[in-house]
Amino acid sequence: MFDKFLRGQIVEANTKIVMLILDGLGGLPREEGGKTELETACKPNMDALASKSALGMTIPIGPGITTGSGPGHLSIFGYNPLEYQIGRGALEALGVDFELGPDDVAARGNFCVVDENGLLVDRRAGRLPTSDSERLVQILRTIKLDGVEVFVEVVKEHRFVLVLRAPSLGAAVTDSDPLVTGAVPLKVQGLDDASQHTAGLVNAFLEQAEVLLRNETSANMVLLRGFAKFPVMPKYSEVFQLNAAAVAVNGMYRGVARLVGMNVLDVGGTDLRNEFDCLEKHWAEYDFFYLHFKKTDTFGEIGDFDAKVKAIEEFDAQLPRLMALNPDVVIIGGDHSSPAVLKSHSWHPVPLLMYGKNVRADKFTEFGETNCANGNLGQLPAYHVMPIALANAGRVAKYGA
Amino acid sequence: MFDKFLRGQIVEANTKIVMLILDGLGGLPREEGGKTELETACKPNMDALASKSALGMTIPIGPGITTGSGPGHLSIFGYNPLEYQIGRGALEALGVDFELGPDDVAARGNFCVVDENGLLVDRRAGRLPTSDSERLVQILRTIKLDGVEVFVEVVKEHRFVLVLRAPSLGAAVTDSDPLVTGAVPLKVQGLDDASQHTAGLVNAFLEQAEVLLRNETSANMVLLRGFAKFPVMPKYSEVFQLNAAAVAVNGMYRGVARLVGMNVLDVGGTDLRNEFDCLEKHWAEYDFFYLHFKKTDTFGEIGDFDAKVKAIEEFDAQLPRLMALNPDVVIIGGDHSSPAVLKSHSWHPVPLLMYGKNVRADKFTEFGETNCANGNLGQLPAYHVMPIALANAGRVAKYGA
Repeated sequence: MFDKFLRGQIVEANTKIVMLILDGLGGLPREEGGKTELETACKPNMDALASKSALGMTIPIGPGITTGSGPGHLSIFGYNPLEYQIGRGALEALGVDFELGPDDVAARGNFCVVDENGLLVDRRAGRLPTSDSERLVQILRTIKLDGVEVFVEVVKEHRFVLVLRAPSLGAAVTDSDPLVTGAVPLKVQGLDDASQHTAGLVNAFLEQAEVLLRNETSANMVLLRGFAKFPVMPKYSEVFQLNAAAVAVNGMYRGVARLVGMNVLDVGGTDLRNEFDCLEKHWAEYDFFYLHFKKTDTFGEIGDFDAKVKAIEEFDAQLPRLMALNPDVVIIGGDHSSPAVLKSHSWHPVPLLMYGKNVRADKFTEFGETNCANGNLGQLPAYHVMPIALANAGRVAKYGA
Repeated sequence: MFDKFLRGQIVEANTKIVMLILDGLGGLPREEGGKTELETACKPNMDALASKSALGMTIPIGPGITTGSGPGHLSIFGYNPLEYQIGRGALEALGVDFELGPDDVAARGNFCVVDENGLLVDRRAGRLPTSDSERLVQILRTIKLDGVEVFVEVVKEHRFVLVLRAPSLGAAVTDSDPLVTGAVPLKVQGLDDASQHTAGLVNAFLEQAEVLLRNETSANMVLLRGFAKFPVMPKYSEVFQLNAAAVAVNGMYRGVARLVGMNVLDVGGTDLRNEFDCLEKHWAEYDFFYLHFKKTDTFGEIGDFDAKVKAIEEFDAQLPRLMALNPDVVIIGGDHSSPAVLKSHSWHPVPLLMYGKNVRADKFTEFGETNCANGNLGQLPAYHVMPIALANAGRVAKYGA
């Protein structure tokens, strides 16, 4: 209900909003009573900004829920992630920058090994090298199915994506992956009429794959799961009247940004400096920028506390380049927490900083979890961040008299 | 929507969660600028635990709402209390510690006075003394109805509870209380087939009551209203995949725990030490324990600040017995506030402590209202506590990629 209401209140303004997402930003102390990664980092620029900002804590999905980056991003982009659920196949396709369309059904694929009786020996084919997968994907691309376009894309190691494109395909299709070794790969089944049509096509694909891969050594069969279509998302231009651009290196983030109608820019390099170069270069063209930084999550997930601290410091060093452009509103936050001590994503709320000349700044002079938990923005669902940013950018009209 | 989503994310784990409920825990200072009951209590064990815990404030029902123990418990048990409302008759039965079962229909009763024409003169019989009601209830207990067990329980002054127990009774039954004097008590009506059967039984009860009470002087008739059954609640085993036990002495709490599928243990005594004995005895058998302590509310309601402080200290003395069992997650909270200065339940949020090795601990070293209002868990609906506890116990799967 609020979404619809907000949409009616949006007005245009000559202001710029920048959302800086440090992936997996939230952390935990290494020892009892200690500081988190963010609290440990020497980050003079973020702390200076914190001094004139409002702090808070975002809850990505709901209490106690650990999220992946896809739903975590949708939420901080302003969409209730429980209303807009993205299936696994669609997420995987996004992850490799595949331009998934409304007629597409996507599935996650594994190359696997079966024995002479067709029983699964290794569901991941020993995580074969990506170079092997690339060759096997070329073979799968020779498969033709009636009345449907077939796309096969390498992901990494044993993982690939299958996309079928045709009007009116259903995606309520069961997995072919039995999830255990010693079993045969399953025939898939469609759970409604439109999906039974899809299932027939998928089973034909699997039969041809079996024949084509039979004499391969590194992997001789495939498994498919997580069939999904793209959710139809209202776009940034519609819901927020924003002409939005995304600055991100990794495919998944580029994909999710495209899903909500952002123009995904060519970064021209994989370094954070390249991302800030890109931001500067396109500064005049857009009124909203999303900039994604991956390293914080990477080091959180491998459990390297010190490297995550250093990544935050690396980010901090670039921040003055943005501030020199005079943005009206700056959001610094994350899509989820990834505490190094847990070596994984976690359910903990995520630190948030919002800068703008009319935010109600709190007294804190350091950006960190405990300050954020006591900040003036309180603890809020991540999808409440955008309305507040828009208001600070003069883009929400007064309601009522 | 979130409930259903959470249910799909629950996984099993070899961890134990303990929820300690100090009834009516939240309080207010006795004098301006003073400390609350909880802040006044000398409670070294709770404070030591607070030092490694995350604090917060639970809102049982909604802003400004003072709740009874029934809905307050449902909420901290993890159920949105506005979705699972307990009818007034059922609440009244719970309130006198009647162990309401799934086959029971309960109604609130009033003793009243009618004139020689059967017209209502006093709907509350002058709020006759409870001792008179006790005698009249003994008379009503002689009423027999075909195929149904009849229970009549004193509440206070003119109020009593009627419970009918038989399979398949409906509770959509209108009131017999016309709510005005000068009218005759109404025949009740059933609004569906199952409730028409109940209505027939109720009208037979009312006819017999009229005859039995005809010559009484303090009250000569009864009025019934608020017919209700226990709501059918999804069970802890279904929603959280928890094998749960309840350690509680009073009937109401035992009833609410049974309602959500907890196994209600035999405490073997009414002292708090007996409850902790019971917890120790059954420790190996369950992965969730709810333990209820009544005295904090009792002394809050009678306005004895010092006795409420002492009750908290009595509880604190038992806490090490739990910690010696090495629980994975411990929740200390309340179902509502009962400030001694108000001599009643109140709408104030309720202090919450959550202990677990991966909670994001705050800096506070004392468990008290003001610290909790600034704790890392923030202020949250009481029914958000369980998802966070489950996450800390490793019982919630990651969502999405």
